[in-house]
Amino acid sequence: MTITMYERVGFENRRPSPFSWRSRYAITHKGINVTYQPTRFLEADMIEQLSGQRYVPILVDGSKVVHDSWRIALYLEKQFPDRPSLFGGESALGQTRFICLWADSTLGQLIKHLIYADFIRCLAPEDRPYFRSSRETALGQSLEAACADRAAWQTRFSAACEPLETLLAEQNFIAGQAPQYVDYSVFSLFQWARLGSPQDLVREQSALAAWRKRMIGLFDGLADKFPHYPSTT
Amino acid sequence: MTITMYERVGFENRRPSPFSWRSRYAITHKGINVTYQPTRFLEADMIEQLSGQRYVPILVDGSKVVHDSWRIALYLEKQFPDRPSLFGGESALGQTRFICLWADSTLGQLIKHLIYADFIRCLAPEDRPYFRSSRETALGQSLEAACADRAAWQTRFSAACEPLETLLAEQNFIAGQAPQYVDYSVFSLFQWARLGSPQDLVREQSALAAWRKRMIGLFDGLADKFPHYPSTT
Repeated sequence: MTITMYERVGFENRRPSPFSWRSRYAITHKGINVTYQPTRFLEADMIEQLSGQRYVPILVDGSKVVHDSWRIALYLEKQFPDRPSLFGGESALGQTRFICLWADSTLGQLIKHLIYADFIRCLAPEDRPYFRSSRETALGQSLEAACADRAAWQTRFSAACEPLETLLAEQNFIAGQAPQYVDYSVFSLFQWARLGSPQDLVREQSALAAWRKRMIGLFDGLADKFPHYPSTT
Repeated sequence: MTITMYERVGFENRRPSPFSWRSRYAITHKGINVTYQPTRFLEADMIEQLSGQRYVPILVDGSKVVHDSWRIALYLEKQFPDRPSLFGGESALGQTRFICLWADSTLGQLIKHLIYADFIRCLAPEDRPYFRSSRETALGQSLEAACADRAAWQTRFSAACEPLETLLAEQNFIAGQAPQYVDYSVFSLFQWARLGSPQDLVREQSALAAWRKRMIGLFDGLADKFPHYPSTT
């Protein structure tokens, strides 16, 4: 039975979604054969027919349709218990959930203010009006206004990263000696920022930069298998 | 061999230190017999002679002197492997470290602005000048000025608690179905605030309030075994 993952695709085969990235890493960690189906923002009607909601990633495994990256991770862990664990036990699972919630609500919100004005160029031109309209409604301002005071947002972002910086000076991965889903999930936000803007928001020589480099190197350089920030539109 | 833990003591037998509280919960979770040695801020010279640094908690186990609450937790886990685990595996341990760092740097810093002006009354009168002087130097302002805009700090604190609120609406403890060190460590900050101020910073009816209540009930109500906020000084 073929498993299919619908993931977000951007301008000229870019992969612009942190949620799709974390699911891709989870699948790769488990070593599962999956067909990836690139999905545009404009295909939300098709996604809704398939899954009852409008967002990717979704995983289709026979008659099972699983949406939401967290639920996909739980599904993979349950369906493939003999493959390497994404979590490492019940206590770790509970804590991973917290760290994912923290990262999305804290780092994710700040990253928007650091990349959105650039990020739109990573999407196919036809997807840009929807992106601009939906994000500007959510932000209550234009993408450009949201990103205007870069220095201030960078300061807040760096401050929010402090506990990660301290941790990663002590250990190689958030999960300890080897990466697990918590690392993929947090990394997916850095990958989103890395591919979504020409400006780096991680300080060189930091423990965070070293961790990101380790993450980029995983799975034969999976993080670099799709195009980077476009030099031209 | 008797194990001794030096923990902070305040006004009339109060226990005002979040770091001492988390070590006390760790010891209780492990079911270890320990003699507690109440320690005042003014006894820092004695603590320095014993441990080479000036802060409690410290654990003295024969010739071993362990300082810092995190290192105490690691020591207990290593020395008492047959007792219930404080972490639940390597991945959980790594993540617990992160959540402790996050909680202390984020929640801990915000709580100071919500309780410090009240909190000083939980200390013995002789300890108050040191507390005021050291904290006001660190804050760069008086305790009262740091706590002046309570509404603004409460808003920031509630926002910082959002990932915890979401998590605890899904599961009973941060570690999942049963509490572990990560719960004790985060709870110790709420316990510090709860005993250190007459004002509550947790919203009634919230998932966080329900978790705090579960935590207060643990170990035969350990959290309530010492005096609450003083009604008089």
